[in-house]
Amino acid sequence: MKTEQIINEIKRQQADAAWITTPLNIFYLTGYLSEPHERLLALLIKADGQQVLYCPQLEVEEVKQSPFEGDIVGYLDTENGLAKAPQSFSKLLVEAEHLTLKRQRELTETFGVTEFDDIDLTIKELRNVKSADEIEKIQHACALADRCIQIGVDYLKEGVTEREVVNHIEYEIKAYGVDEMSFDTMVLFGDHAASPHGTPGDRQLKQDEYVLFDLGVVYENYCSDMTRTVRFGTPSDEAQTIYRTVLEAEQQAIQAIKPGVTIKDIDRIARDIIGDAGYGEYFTHRLGHGLGLEEHEYQDVSSTNDNQFVAGMVVTVEPGIYVPNVAGVRIEDDILVTEDGYQVLTQYEK
Amino acid sequence: MKTEQIINEIKRQQADAAWITTPLNIFYLTGYLSEPHERLLALLIKADGQQVLYCPQLEVEEVKQSPFEGDIVGYLDTENGLAKAPQSFSKLLVEAEHLTLKRQRELTETFGVTEFDDIDLTIKELRNVKSADEIEKIQHACALADRCIQIGVDYLKEGVTEREVVNHIEYEIKAYGVDEMSFDTMVLFGDHAASPHGTPGDRQLKQDEYVLFDLGVVYENYCSDMTRTVRFGTPSDEAQTIYRTVLEAEQQAIQAIKPGVTIKDIDRIARDIIGDAGYGEYFTHRLGHGLGLEEHEYQDVSSTNDNQFVAGMVVTVEPGIYVPNVAGVRIEDDILVTEDGYQVLTQYEK
Repeated sequence: MKTEQIINEIKRQQADAAWITTPLNIFYLTGYLSEPHERLLALLIKADGQQVLYCPQLEVEEVKQSPFEGDIVGYLDTENGLAKAPQSFSKLLVEAEHLTLKRQRELTETFGVTEFDDIDLTIKELRNVKSADEIEKIQHACALADRCIQIGVDYLKEGVTEREVVNHIEYEIKAYGVDEMSFDTMVLFGDHAASPHGTPGDRQLKQDEYVLFDLGVVYENYCSDMTRTVRFGTPSDEAQTIYRTVLEAEQQAIQAIKPGVTIKDIDRIARDIIGDAGYGEYFTHRLGHGLGLEEHEYQDVSSTNDNQFVAGMVVTVEPGIYVPNVAGVRIEDDILVTEDGYQVLTQYEK
Repeated sequence: MKTEQIINEIKRQQADAAWITTPLNIFYLTGYLSEPHERLLALLIKADGQQVLYCPQLEVEEVKQSPFEGDIVGYLDTENGLAKAPQSFSKLLVEAEHLTLKRQRELTETFGVTEFDDIDLTIKELRNVKSADEIEKIQHACALADRCIQIGVDYLKEGVTEREVVNHIEYEIKAYGVDEMSFDTMVLFGDHAASPHGTPGDRQLKQDEYVLFDLGVVYENYCSDMTRTVRFGTPSDEAQTIYRTVLEAEQQAIQAIKPGVTIKDIDRIARDIIGDAGYGEYFTHRLGHGLGLEEHEYQDVSSTNDNQFVAGMVVTVEPGIYVPNVAGVRIEDDILVTEDGYQVLTQYEK
């Protein structure tokens, strides 16, 4: 049980309960997904295991139909949600990265809480290791991302604009049941891909350029996130050299992934290859990040992460080289850490 | 100057500075828009008027090109952003509805802040009254929403699914330069529109149903939000009665809007008309809400709001009646409060 580890942490910190308010964490722990915006949505887990979900009244029926089995407290917009089922706690574990000062104040005023500590890392570590069911959904999201790249590549022609390719991909993929991309689809042509915050626009595709696709889809709440940089004609020799360097860095980094390997060492492998080729200053970001319910989630695949890979983690590996006025190349795959190594979940050719 | 009112509030509360972290509030005050996700982005306004924007290093160039004229402090992912330009404050005004416990802790640790108070309402009241420039953008967003409804209506035919209509609208409106809807477009057929959280799906359109469209677009960062419930054939007599009741409630409420009128009185007008027609229990939400940089923003048009309308406010008026297994009807317009009354910004026929 996921909640057992939370109860253990409550006991370890000698707290009375945990108060969880990040919608995706609530979904992860209860199976009930909702974006309440400014309204209160909170999962209370007490040291004795009792669970209470505080939610807007109009969501109560949906919660009942969800897998959540604890108590449900609905409140109207005109009511104080906490006061509908008052509690008395002295120490409460909360998500310090999500709870606002206003919500904290309400907890002190209504529940009498005097001491707050953090539950964030406990939940991140739970979410860090994916279950078989989660992996299946991510795999499906990755297969759909592969399909998006294919749709985009098939649509390339001289004169087409970046924005037109984005719109075409996002429209066509709906026929495969995709309602939502995991982030704004990026399609950038030629040297436009070398600007760090490029946004698809009216730039037209010319012969002999690279086309950078960075995209992902949401499948049953799980995300994919992949990048391909694809030739349209024959790019310049320098652009091709950049491409081969990024590919080499990506493949070497991926091949070193297995449980027990320190995460920062993988970043180092890619960074060294790119540095040795003389492009070190143009690889300006971390190597990758965790992937799951969010397209960017715990944990960083970066030069400062001393944690180790464990089986069940899903991360991106995405080195890039961005040389202004020349070319921008990034190649990104989604990688599952397996018991004895890794599995590449995104499969479009590179 | 917008920041003058913030400086006045800093002085009134005898604070040292204000620390603003909501991306749209930063945009409102500086003209620089960014969604930093988990990274720090903060606008510091000191009592003496000095302004400092703390942002990720890779955004520094973009900030320089924005209208913001204060100091810019960029930081790398491996650096503590606050420590790059340390400050020493005892009392700081913050957005209690946005600042998290973690960020508050950093302010105490790095800037030595010992007392926090709220700046939220000051900014809400600034944003409450739109400038001529903001109104023009909202008008444009409203005209595009009208166009979306027309595109949707033209696409209705027996057997089409809700989801197909949504996809068609969102694709076709791109040709008008729209990159983003202000929220997930809602198209619901017949009694499906009576479920409070209906999501467009595979339900097919039948003859003699109402079709509910609830949608909006973003134009230069400003939102529209409108609803039309449109006849496809001849709906049942009861459904038509419901429609006429909602329309009457909406029109009477709108016609009473002018500066000085108490906001809750407008909600009352619509609620009384719907109650008198016997449908009171089926009008289950507030009458409307503010509209601008967000599709839902300060302030509520509800039964508990004792504030008055002032010229320059933009609000929605959107009564609805949802009778399970019969029909769901909502009609929503975006209304500008003018010096001597109101102007309806959304114009599609109803």
